[in-house]
Amino acid sequence: MDKLPNRPRPPLRAVLFDAYGTLFDVYSVAASAEQRFPGRGEALARLWRDKQLEYSRLVSMADAGGRLYQPFWDLTRASLRHAAQTLGLALDEAAEERLMNEYRHLSAYPENRRVLQQLRALGLPAGILSNGDPAMIAVAVKSAGIADLIDPLISVGPLRCYKPDPRVYQHGLEVLRQTRPELQARQVLFVSSNGWDVLGATWFGFTSFWLNRAGLPRETLDPPPTHEGRRLDDLLPLLGDPGGAADA
Amino acid sequence: MDKLPNRPRPPLRAVLFDAYGTLFDVYSVAASAEQRFPGRGEALARLWRDKQLEYSRLVSMADAGGRLYQPFWDLTRASLRHAAQTLGLALDEAAEERLMNEYRHLSAYPENRRVLQQLRALGLPAGILSNGDPAMIAVAVKSAGIADLIDPLISVGPLRCYKPDPRVYQHGLEVLRQTRPELQARQVLFVSSNGWDVLGATWFGFTSFWLNRAGLPRETLDPPPTHEGRRLDDLLPLLGDPGGAADA
Repeated sequence: MDKLPNRPRPPLRAVLFDAYGTLFDVYSVAASAEQRFPGRGEALARLWRDKQLEYSRLVSMADAGGRLYQPFWDLTRASLRHAAQTLGLALDEAAEERLMNEYRHLSAYPENRRVLQQLRALGLPAGILSNGDPAMIAVAVKSAGIADLIDPLISVGPLRCYKPDPRVYQHGLEVLRQTRPELQARQVLFVSSNGWDVLGATWFGFTSFWLNRAGLPRETLDPPPTHEGRRLDDLLPLLGDPGGAADA
Repeated sequence: MDKLPNRPRPPLRAVLFDAYGTLFDVYSVAASAEQRFPGRGEALARLWRDKQLEYSRLVSMADAGGRLYQPFWDLTRASLRHAAQTLGLALDEAAEERLMNEYRHLSAYPENRRVLQQLRALGLPAGILSNGDPAMIAVAVKSAGIADLIDPLISVGPLRCYKPDPRVYQHGLEVLRQTRPELQARQVLFVSSNGWDVLGATWFGFTSFWLNRAGLPRETLDPPPTHEGRRLDDLLPLLGDPGGAADA
């Protein structure tokens, strides 16, 4: 872990995106939830997401050996059920399937494709490093129309633990090194809208970009993100001129 | 980890309580927060607690070696600041100190003392196993008037990781074994109002009691708690007749 934030950073050579919340809008399920449960859609989407993250952390923390690991899809279903019960909503099988199907085909943020095209034009590899299962990620990028622009798709599945376990970020680096053996962690720009994920990536040693779409306050746990922006486009200036990618 | 929930359980020989949320009411700070920030006290208390738990999990997950560990007191302060910023509340130094001081002296649930006295009468050791720092726990039990009835006070401090890391529950067992070398995990009743803590304890192998004061739905991640009750008194029938402490 890098304790020298003021050391000049080397040019960025690759980009890894978080998926859920970053490329795909996890709260886009709220609209569908609102149709089924008028007045409660947003609350359900929020509790669902919170519980999904909690469960992913609990199984990771409680057994580093992966025996308690469950695929993200299963945790997503379990957390939907808990969120509905917490709000006292009757979630029958049809409603559960409809919401799970919405989660499989989350809305993508509109600027994704344009930004990914520009990364492609710059010759930079742009992949996903996600807590999602391989099948979830594959369906999501296809559904969002960005499958041709994003590669590699890296899932925690084979590791049986979840971000921010540092083994996940290490795995992302190793996959990129299969084609770029000299790549250093600091040459990878890790992009996430999730403050906790940016923390984990920064702790690990990646150069980080916090995509703060909602204008939220920074996490009060150090270190801060290397870079921060409000839109995905804001990361392009860091990459267009490799010499200019110094600390924010 | 015990995968045989239907195997008859041995009599319970000791009790370990979670502290925050279980013996001490973490939301009792809401009243003080409400005085300072009318209309926002409850929201502040809830965001504060959520962020405190999140930060404890992130530092534990991101570095099992404990280099990222920060004392619970420091995480509690960092999370208060983040919660206030999220709500757009101006938390000056005096307000921060007042709320931190409230957290140091949380309200205790009224039945604590009576139940602990009955455990004492039964000759059962009753200790605390908490994410709190040693000093926080010591002040809290003194402030709550139960210091004479609860022993040992076991903190995660020396381990530099947080529940539900299984090393914490193992440490609790080992401390109890200093005076009862033959004690098995299943002979320890672990009591918590926090669903995630009950999960961690059950995964570890303790007999668990979910103190579900608020009548919340069960976690939808297996296994279920060994036992469940709405008040602290509800655990007494499990202990009075050691032969009767079978599964719920």
